[in-house]
Amino acid sequence: MSAGWFRRRFLPGGPLPAPRPPRPRSSPVPYRRPRFLRGSGSGPGTADAPRRPDVRPVRSPARGRALPWNAGYAEIINAEKSEFNEDQAACGQLCIRRCEFGAEEDQEWQTLCPEEFLTGHYWALFDGHGGPAAAILAANTLHSCLRRQLEAVVEGMVATQPPMHLSGRSICPSDPQFVEEKGIRAEDLVIGALESAFQECDEVIGRELEASGQVGGCTALVAVSLQGKLYVANAGDSRAILVRKDEVRPLSSEFTPETERQRIQQLAFVYPELLAGEFTRLEFPRRLKGDDLGQKVLFRDHHMRGWSYKCVEKSDLKYPLIHGQGRQARLLGTLAVSRGLGDHQLRVLDTNIQLKPFLLAVPQVTVLDVDQLELQEEDVVVMATDGLWDVLSNEQVARLVRSFLPGNREDSHRFSELAQMLIHSTQGKDDSLTEEGQVSYDDISVFVIPLHSQGQRSSGH
Amino acid sequence: MSAGWFRRRFLPGGPLPAPRPPRPRSSPVPYRRPRFLRGSGSGPGTADAPRRPDVRPVRSPARGRALPWNAGYAEIINAEKSEFNEDQAACGQLCIRRCEFGAEEDQEWQTLCPEEFLTGHYWALFDGHGGPAAAILAANTLHSCLRRQLEAVVEGMVATQPPMHLSGRSICPSDPQFVEEKGIRAEDLVIGALESAFQECDEVIGRELEASGQVGGCTALVAVSLQGKLYVANAGDSRAILVRKDEVRPLSSEFTPETERQRIQQLAFVYPELLAGEFTRLEFPRRLKGDDLGQKVLFRDHHMRGWSYKCVEKSDLKYPLIHGQGRQARLLGTLAVSRGLGDHQLRVLDTNIQLKPFLLAVPQVTVLDVDQLELQEEDVVVMATDGLWDVLSNEQVARLVRSFLPGNREDSHRFSELAQMLIHSTQGKDDSLTEEGQVSYDDISVFVIPLHSQGQRSSGH
Repeated sequence: MSAGWFRRRFLPGGPLPAPRPPRPRSSPVPYRRPRFLRGSGSGPGTADAPRRPDVRPVRSPARGRALPWNAGYAEIINAEKSEFNEDQAACGQLCIRRCEFGAEEDQEWQTLCPEEFLTGHYWALFDGHGGPAAAILAANTLHSCLRRQLEAVVEGMVATQPPMHLSGRSICPSDPQFVEEKGIRAEDLVIGALESAFQECDEVIGRELEASGQVGGCTALVAVSLQGKLYVANAGDSRAILVRKDEVRPLSSEFTPETERQRIQQLAFVYPELLAGEFTRLEFPRRLKGDDLGQKVLFRDHHMRGWSYKCVEKSDLKYPLIHGQGRQARLLGTLAVSRGLGDHQLRVLDTNIQLKPFLLAVPQVTVLDVDQLELQEEDVVVMATDGLWDVLSNEQVARLVRSFLPGNREDSHRFSELAQMLIHSTQGKDDSLTEEGQVSYDDISVFVIPLHSQGQRSSGH
Repeated sequence: MSAGWFRRRFLPGGPLPAPRPPRPRSSPVPYRRPRFLRGSGSGPGTADAPRRPDVRPVRSPARGRALPWNAGYAEIINAEKSEFNEDQAACGQLCIRRCEFGAEEDQEWQTLCPEEFLTGHYWALFDGHGGPAAAILAANTLHSCLRRQLEAVVEGMVATQPPMHLSGRSICPSDPQFVEEKGIRAEDLVIGALESAFQECDEVIGRELEASGQVGGCTALVAVSLQGKLYVANAGDSRAILVRKDEVRPLSSEFTPETERQRIQQLAFVYPELLAGEFTRLEFPRRLKGDDLGQKVLFRDHHMRGWSYKCVEKSDLKYPLIHGQGRQARLLGTLAVSRGLGDHQLRVLDTNIQLKPFLLAVPQVTVLDVDQLELQEEDVVVMATDGLWDVLSNEQVARLVRSFLPGNREDSHRFSELAQMLIHSTQGKDDSLTEEGQVSYDDISVFVIPLHSQGQRSSGH
């Protein structure tokens, strides 16, 4: 694998094609608290009116106890969506200590006793909202949380089968059989570590933002290459796909108010007080109004995947818990994603209604068994924030990958240039690349990860 | 389609091969309330010690307002699991009135004005536990609930696109566009009707069992053929599969304490009082004991798909909310399924801890677009209760279907005989049919539904 720090570019006055206004982040008709209720809310900041954070975007990955980063390709373009680029990224080598020693000894130990470390690679994209603060904190923190979580279970990960007791002590002779019957494998410990790391990072962000008086949240998409497998953990609406010669495979699902409708409605059903009497839990095709009263209209509740009709009552006229359609769907009229980090202080405009109870910091993790793939040189994983996928489909990205890579085999930076090309193709420079010449006005970040070199780490590529 | 009442056979002393005891329905080490706590519980009946119901199995489908049943194939065999056969089945034509008229006019109207009815077919399997009472009630009730729910939305179903308002009244000119953007189709109304019908039927069963002092619950697997589509609704551990010449496709998923672990743990996390301090919400590879105290052992909580290690505390030694492995997994040490109808009174043995809050009556519905399939004469759907799938895999059933049907083309009862043959193949009569000559001791019910005649209903087959 070609080594090199990832590059980050800001194009504050980039060559954008059209004077169209930026894609709105809040719904077309955002929730407005009824006038007679305004004034009593005292939320420190909201998605519509975030307090400008004091921090600046950090331009290098976190240091801390991590060993030098050495691989990955990222392009981040700020398409004037916000004053600060709300996208952040991090990547590098992940070194997991297999035994206890002091922080200052790490560097030396890794040279002297490499077998005392389990090494992997880490790539992460964070798409911020309400300012870049949470995304910056996540880019600086999540890999440390993950390393800590992995080090806590590494002995189980390197065993043939994770032992019932981490100490390896045998209390019940049939313990290995119980573990076997549950089908628990080393990869389940990595999944568990990723889940815990996201939650730990979310807590750190909550504390740091509160201490510094800042606000905001971010999505998080992480890929980890470890022990011949690629783990993709996603909380938010970024996406990772595998592109091979004859295959395009999604490696993540998006978590939005629409995709998580039933979970969100269910929570409001269990805790109606979270809506403070200002929202309706039910879903209708559009927001209802006085003329709909008494009519039987289409609706869905938390337990329904199908639709039915109900007679409209006065309480159904409230603003819907989830409102809008597709990319415009908003949770509590405020947020376009339903999982991510941060947002501990986020409230609905002019109210005390908190968003956080409806948000999950826990990611969904998928595992790609790279060692089992018959890898070809141009097999890659493409990770990108939502701006790319707003404009390009998985198939379109795959076509661009397949047309770009074979013609650039001699270029040692071709994966980085592919990432750049993918972003440029969303900027309206070539109408043939996107359907109907669509253009993205969002911050966009892309990683292109060549799997072939991942699979051949030891061969010196 | 060959018409005929479905046949139901009871083989109370059938030719069973081995003297092995029946497969236990409760876990190998069932939950026992600690002795010092016993006596205060006053549950009217539990899965381990059900009160024998007074009712007898009903041998004909419900009458009520349903028009004559006329199609379907079922074999039900009681393999001495219980004194009463806990499996029940129902099938027949489903006639949905498109306008209002009196009950006594239905029969005449259907002859005079068939266009005033939307007709379909209905097949249902119910696998009871704690006695046959709930399964019998479900077999007699669910189709009526479904007919009522479908009649409530039939005008939306037959429209080109379900209207925002059932009355068809236009309040907002862009209403059709809102419905279009949400992607709401006629099939979503059928899915919604199935979801509502299961819940309505569950309420009816709860009332009827309470009024008659009976107990019990049942799983429910329903297939409905309507407007060129086959809807499969499942709540429990029965299964339906599509078998074609070159394809085997699952049409349902099973709902057990294992497959619904996260939902069940999540509920216990939100309402810890449901466990009354006697169970632990966490999952471990086995039940913990005193020697595990202080050790770091493998565990999972509600938010985790992966595994991690935790230091064992005293509260972790309680009986697990979900215990046992695979087919032996039990919810609260009592029940092997996590969705179904009934069980309103079911409590953990010797306690007041109720099972019902953890059970869902709502089914998962899948839709098979039969009209879009290039149907061949031997394409069938096989529906069966869990006893069949304990012994035969989907692929094994498909092989039996494909070997049986082509050789029996002249036999007008061949689908019925195929159902019979599938059941016999689980009774140990031919070791070559199942892996390692496995035998089922459970009640087993099977429907074989020929799709070819479904697709050609109007051609008079």
